Amino acid sequence: MTEKNIDDAPSLKQALTEEFEEIVDAPAQVGLSDEAIREITESLNAPENDDHIALVEDLSHADTADLLQKVSDDDRRALIEQNTSEIDPQTFSYMDPDLRKATLSQMDAKDVAEIISALDSDDALEIIENLDEDFQKQIIQQLSAKTRLVIEEGLTFPEDSAGRLMQREFVAIPQFWTVGKAIDYMRAAASELPSEFYDLIVIDPLYHVVGEIPLNRILRSKRSVKIEELTLDELHTIPAEMDQEEAAMIFRREGLNSAPVVDNDSRLIGVITFDDILNVIDEEAEEDIMKLAGIEGSGMYRSVLSTTASRFRWLFVNLMTAIAASIVISMFDATVEQIVALAVLMPIVASMGGNAGTQALTVAVRALATKELSSTNMVRVISKETIVGTLNGAGFAVIMGVIAAVWFTSPMLGGVIATAMIINLFFAGFFGAAIPIFLDRIGSDPALSSTVLLTTITDIVGFFAFLGLASIFLI
Amino acid sequence: MTEKNIDDAPSLKQALTEEFEEIVDAPAQVGLSDEAIREITESLNAPENDDHIALVEDLSHADTADLLQKVSDDDRRALIEQNTSEIDPQTFSYMDPDLRKATLSQMDAKDVAEIISALDSDDALEIIENLDEDFQKQIIQQLSAKTRLVIEEGLTFPEDSAGRLMQREFVAIPQFWTVGKAIDYMRAAASELPSEFYDLIVIDPLYHVVGEIPLNRILRSKRSVKIEELTLDELHTIPAEMDQEEAAMIFRREGLNSAPVVDNDSRLIGVITFDDILNVIDEEAEEDIMKLAGIEGSGMYRSVLSTTASRFRWLFVNLMTAIAASIVISMFDATVEQIVALAVLMPIVASMGGNAGTQALTVAVRALATKELSSTNMVRVISKETIVGTLNGAGFAVIMGVIAAVWFTSPMLGGVIATAMIINLFFAGFFGAAIPIFLDRIGSDPALSSTVLLTTITDIVGFFAFLGLASIFLI
Repeated sequence: MTEKNIDDAPSLKQALTEEFEEIVDAPAQVGLSDEAIREITESLNAPENDDHIALVEDLSHADTADLLQKVSDDDRRALIEQNTSEIDPQTFSYMDPDLRKATLSQMDAKDVAEIISALDSDDALEIIENLDEDFQKQIIQQLSAKTRLVIEEGLTFPEDSAGRLMQREFVAIPQFWTVGKAIDYMRAAASELPSEFYDLIVIDPLYHVVGEIPLNRILRSKRSVKIEELTLDELHTIPAEMDQEEAAMIFRREGLNSAPVVDNDSRLIGVITFDDILNVIDEEAEEDIMKLAGIEGSGMYRSVLSTTASRFRWLFVNLMTAIAASIVISMFDATVEQIVALAVLMPIVASMGGNAGTQALTVAVRALATKELSSTNMVRVISKETIVGTLNGAGFAVIMGVIAAVWFTSPMLGGVIATAMIINLFFAGFFGAAIPIFLDRIGSDPALSSTVLLTTITDIVGFFAFLGLASIFLI
Repeated sequence: MTEKNIDDAPSLKQALTEEFEEIVDAPAQVGLSDEAIREITESLNAPENDDHIALVEDLSHADTADLLQKVSDDDRRALIEQNTSEIDPQTFSYMDPDLRKATLSQMDAKDVAEIISALDSDDALEIIENLDEDFQKQIIQQLSAKTRLVIEEGLTFPEDSAGRLMQREFVAIPQFWTVGKAIDYMRAAASELPSEFYDLIVIDPLYHVVGEIPLNRILRSKRSVKIEELTLDELHTIPAEMDQEEAAMIFRREGLNSAPVVDNDSRLIGVITFDDILNVIDEEAEEDIMKLAGIEGSGMYRSVLSTTASRFRWLFVNLMTAIAASIVISMFDATVEQIVALAVLMPIVASMGGNAGTQALTVAVRALATKELSSTNMVRVISKETIVGTLNGAGFAVIMGVIAAVWFTSPMLGGVIATAMIINLFFAGFFGAAIPIFLDRIGSDPALSSTVLLTTITDIVGFFAFLGLASIFLI
């Protein structure tokens, strides 16, 4: 009987796992499903049930990261404590940086050092660079001399530079070799090669990059073909100091799979691969969208207090601009007191200006980020946005003019709001495009402060034009 | 003398080209510089000067696309007419879809058919799918039978599906082969293989995908090793009907270089590569950022009238919500008439609510897009945003309460605006997170209409709370 039970155990586990896999692999479901997460957390919180150990073991790195990100703080702590050996170090490179920092900071430096040591140099660096400096030092002390050297050197490169992104593991060969010799070398050194690589990097004796060869070019060539014959004409070396955004632009434009990274003496020191670049592109797109809304970082996994504080700053700037707009209104308080319809209608003019301006602004910010907008077409873009704004201003002048005239039985009031609408949407189009271009010119980040500057202008112009015209023509 | 002149010509051209290349390759410059563009357009517009022909010839595809995108409409037309043979068909796949459509629509169907025929099937399909249907038909008639079949079949897949993204050129081998046999095959078939490939796809006799092998695994293995031993455990086949956004998510999560695409019978019909995915990720990020601002498409290269019309629609919806807010104000017109300070201060409450809500909304929209937000953590995210909103509301209640009390020497007015601020930022946080989640649940696109719904709520709640409290406590 006992024996039978032992035999049964794995098949039971297997049945459980298979059923679970069906949930995990549900069709049209990318990532871990909510049902799978529920099953794991239920088991986690049932003292006598430790299915979750086996279930977590079966997840891919990305799915495990998903799991850790989506569960509550308590469940996450319990999962990590109970599944330490089942959670692969690679999982941490899939996690959101904020959450990863919070999670690792609760662990011993020694345990984190073990995680770091198990990763490729680029992933290791990405994890360590976000931690607090003191904790960084404690971890680095626990690393082997070799890993420590790589990490410390990596940290000398500027943040968000190619040097931080690259991995130090690559395959470089001299240009005088043949295809046959290169293949023999790779077979002999198989176990020392990086786990993945996509190009061979051709170097001279001083480690200067001479060229790159995509692997398919090696495979389709005869053994006798010289390496130098296969080398691509164009060389896409990336200086270690280059900003990651620039590097991503090069990858995107040239359709690169990987690119060699060189130091100041043009010597090969690492390789950036397309998966690093995918992360950069995601990050940059996220940054732009967040900055436009006045958010620092992704915000999803920050604590409530830290989130509140970071958003407070931007809202405070916004309060100042709202007060500025109020001061404009207060300049016309006598007029508003006489005609209360002005108070009713004035937010419409400001709001339409803000929205029309935001449209122009978003197009300009995005075009600057993708380098589609530069001094060549700058004037053309600003002109176009100004015309679009004015045309829409004219359209809404008619609509809103009629509505206001009928609502308050005052054709003159209709005329005033119509004129104010045209004026405000003209300025909205012009400044919507011009503000980000101007900020970019003076070296500021256009995504960061464009919105506040723009709404200040559209609020002030909107209230000033509407109330000013009213005080002239309606009193 | 004549002979000497002829000899001179190429070296002159070479000198010119070298100088130009220095401009093109200026450091820290990704993409074509404004100086290079100016040099080309100046030559283009000087009748006796045809340097631009040689200069354009030297540009990479991405740079030529940059050039065509940034110059004026007239210059673009002239460039294409005068440089027809220097502009590589591939250039068009680097261009913005709107601008490409406008450019190709001015050409003969025959010329466009030539461009299409010269491209890989995925690029060809991408270009043709955006053109008008009549023009599409004319072009397809001009294609060779083989290309026509590929294009027509490609067009049967849903828009933005994996089937539209994939290329039909791939390298598939049977699993019973050895590494040696695979290499021999690739050497023998070298000229028929796709120009680039990153993985071998292992198939059974019925063309079902059995596995994938990254090329580096082939290169590091001995000739005698069996193909089936090298096949990756995990299979990442993508159904042709899958949405490109889902496909991008899989690439990103699994760090894929390429993935096989299968039809409804699980047979291999194509391959998606990482460069297609880079485009998808860029497109999707752009779409989200544009939709949040109420813009259809990228907007950069649309004509003035078409841009005006597309933006008008969203502004019109916005006008309706602004009018709704005005109706709320008009409900309290007697109160405003008595205390004009209310008209001065009321935009502040609405504006702070709109901005705080947009912060919560942007985080939620982005987290839904990246699938970091689902039913597991939905309640937690909404609670967090509501708390953050309320805390910031309390902070700004104090600040704005004091300012209003001092400005209008009325502590009671300060109390009213403080209370209204807390109420509005509470709702802003709650609805900022809840609206996108709700829209996602009912199958709507959260990026598209969240902003309008949110500002409607924050405007109405803001005006209602502030003016309502004022009419109770200040009159």
